[in-house]
Amino acid sequence: MRRITLLTDFGTADGYVAAMKGVIASIAPEAIIDDASHDIPPGDVVAASHALERYWDLYPPGTVHVVVVDPGVGSARRAIAAEAEGRYFVAPDNGVLSPVFDAAGTSIHALEDAAFRRPEVSSTFHGRDVFAPAAAHLARGAPIARLGRPIGDPVRLEAPAAVRDEAGVHGRVVHVDRFGNLITNIPGEWVEHAAEVLVAGRSVGPIRRIYADVSPGELLALVGSAGVVEIAVRDGSAAERLGVRRGTDVRVR
Amino acid sequence: MRRITLLTDFGTADGYVAAMKGVIASIAPEAIIDDASHDIPPGDVVAASHALERYWDLYPPGTVHVVVVDPGVGSARRAIAAEAEGRYFVAPDNGVLSPVFDAAGTSIHALEDAAFRRPEVSSTFHGRDVFAPAAAHLARGAPIARLGRPIGDPVRLEAPAAVRDEAGVHGRVVHVDRFGNLITNIPGEWVEHAAEVLVAGRSVGPIRRIYADVSPGELLALVGSAGVVEIAVRDGSAAERLGVRRGTDVRVR
Amino acid sequence: MRRITLLTDFGTADGYVAAMKGVIASIAPEAIIDDASHDIPPGDVVAASHALERYWDLYPPGTVHVVVVDPGVGSARRAIAAEAEGRYFVAPDNGVLSPVFDAAGTSIHALEDAAFRRPEVSSTFHGRDVFAPAAAHLARGAPIARLGRPIGDPVRLEAPAAVRDEAGVHGRVVHVDRFGNLITNIPGEWVEHAAEVLVAGRSVGPIRRIYADVSPGELLALVGSAGVVEIAVRDGSAAERLGVRRGTDVRVR
Repeated sequence: MRRITLLTDFGTADGYVAAMKGVIASIAPEAIIDDASHDIPPGDVVAASHALERYWDLYPPGTVHVVVVDPGVGSARRAIAAEAEGRYFVAPDNGVLSPVFDAAGTSIHALEDAAFRRPEVSSTFHGRDVFAPAAAHLARGAPIARLGRPIGDPVRLEAPAAVRDEAGVHGRVVHVDRFGNLITNIPGEWVEHAAEVLVAGRSVGPIRRIYADVSPGELLALVGSAGVVEIAVRDGSAAERLGVRRGTDVRVR
Repeated sequence: MRRITLLTDFGTADGYVAAMKGVIASIAPEAIIDDASHDIPPGDVVAASHALERYWDLYPPGTVHVVVVDPGVGSARRAIAAEAEGRYFVAPDNGVLSPVFDAAGTSIHALEDAAFRRPEVSSTFHGRDVFAPAAAHLARGAPIARLGRPIGDPVRLEAPAAVRDEAGVHGRVVHVDRFGNLITNIPGEWVEHAAEVLVAGRSVGPIRRIYADVSPGELLALVGSAGVVEIAVRDGSAAERLGVRRGTDVRVR
Repeated sequence: MRRITLLTDFGTADGYVAAMKGVIASIAPEAIIDDASHDIPPGDVVAASHALERYWDLYPPGTVHVVVVDPGVGSARRAIAAEAEGRYFVAPDNGVLSPVFDAAGTSIHALEDAAFRRPEVSSTFHGRDVFAPAAAHLARGAPIARLGRPIGDPVRLEAPAAVRDEAGVHGRVVHVDRFGNLITNIPGEWVEHAAEVLVAGRSVGPIRRIYADVSPGELLALVGSAGVVEIAVRDGSAAERLGVRRGTDVRVR
């Protein structure tokens, strides 16, 4: 039995997530369902995509990752399934699977076949009516090609890469995490420890190795667990300290 | 092995939910435990009941649904188990299972037999001491009649139904979800697309089909995934926009 | 297959918890992973320790409890595994496992052997790189002694015990839960129902038996589900009412 993960912006208190789990359990009674998160900010496709990037390939091949952050539900946006490096995905075609599309040999299919949906599909809750049943059937071993025709033009999120020139590296904050750490799009390999990091023009010093390289309450930059430059406050929140958010300019020189 | 779902107002940070899971795992080591939610507002039996209604019958027969929103814990309120359409339930007898009682052939029993409780029952945490062990024993196949004598008079929540007359339909907001959608008690079959919907006297226009029928930021009414009229703001919160809450008057004419 | 529980301060929205689950599932594909909580306040080792105390021994022997509240990640603080009463634990050596150390026959080991870590260990995310793989290997049956050498001097949290003299009992609030209940360190066996309880010098009356012994909205003291004196407001929050927090002085006379 394959394992299924769920990532949504539904919260849990309204019973929507449990409805999805119930649909899955009805189709695939032995499925283990792991909550990835239901606390993505409502409609924030970029944040969901960032979270997915953290875990999708740490799960073993055969895992089915369900992602439902779907502000366009009910409109003409497509529903899709994908396979990448042996993992499966179901999601709206709104770019939320972008981190997966660059994996070698990814195949993408439209979720079209009515046999893999609930008999009646609402216009507002495809998590329950479209994505949960498709995921359960994939977990039971349904071939992805059965779900619908291949798609070559999935929606992709624009994710401007960091750039390098003689003056240094120019990137930006792409995510702010629960601890107030600022995650950037600057690859760790691009920077040297002697470099100076500036966030919105303000220096946060050189690239450190660990949080404990500075005193509690101090700002620092380091290469974090995602392999990119992060700005943090030891035992505190860099987002609060600097008053910055996703999109803020970061330079290394 | 039957699957067990948990719905509480405990949050998770205090370890109360994990205590329930531990008790279940000790009695039914193979049980798969799905979190429905632990974010029900403290003591809000109506909200828990609404959430339960979203998912209980989507789970397969044999599932055991645990609901612990229990402001009367330790008092004379009874603890009950129920069976409805093959699903099992354990909960305080405070009306939280009301959505289940109308299902055909529902049987309800008091949770009385000490063999299905922890040896010592605290006065403040029946989730751990009464409901978790009962659920685990049901998941292992204990007949519900073993748990206690049948009950014919469970507490029911008052849930005023919408009414129809020549002037139209008169209902109210019964739930506000995470997205700020206003869920009403007005059945979708009662309304036509040409109808005009008024919330607290303010028109939100006709019944639409999908969110994308209006522009981002605009109010709309539609028949939602629960089969009832909902009021929403596309990519926004109707609750915030209209400043309304559970109980607000809704009319369709 | 052993069951694994996770307790962190990571929240879920950033994908860090799902990354840990993915690592576990890759090593121990059949593992059932129970979320204990991911809502511990960031860096609050004391709160995590309190939560753990609520559930660790309710789970059956063989369970692996993972606790990652780790403000010192990347520094010289050790990573440890422990076995107590047949349950296993992995955590940073920062005192978070203190409730376990007093159990008879507890053994503690350093997490040193590189075979039980991810090949590359980041300096900021040992949950993913150290603790999750160690837990998965323990769940698969790896002997704890294989993970590293025994440790006799784990870090312990200072937890001042309540004291008794002729004037009565003197303790303090050690935890405030989601409902605003004030959990103290005063054992229930030390107090009689006729006693008077004072919080920060203010009387909350005698020791009651159940919430319903007072009217809704009233303060009360009782012996709670952890076996210690708690101060509550029936259907309300004692923390809000009294404006007190962890550490507040509590006397019984």
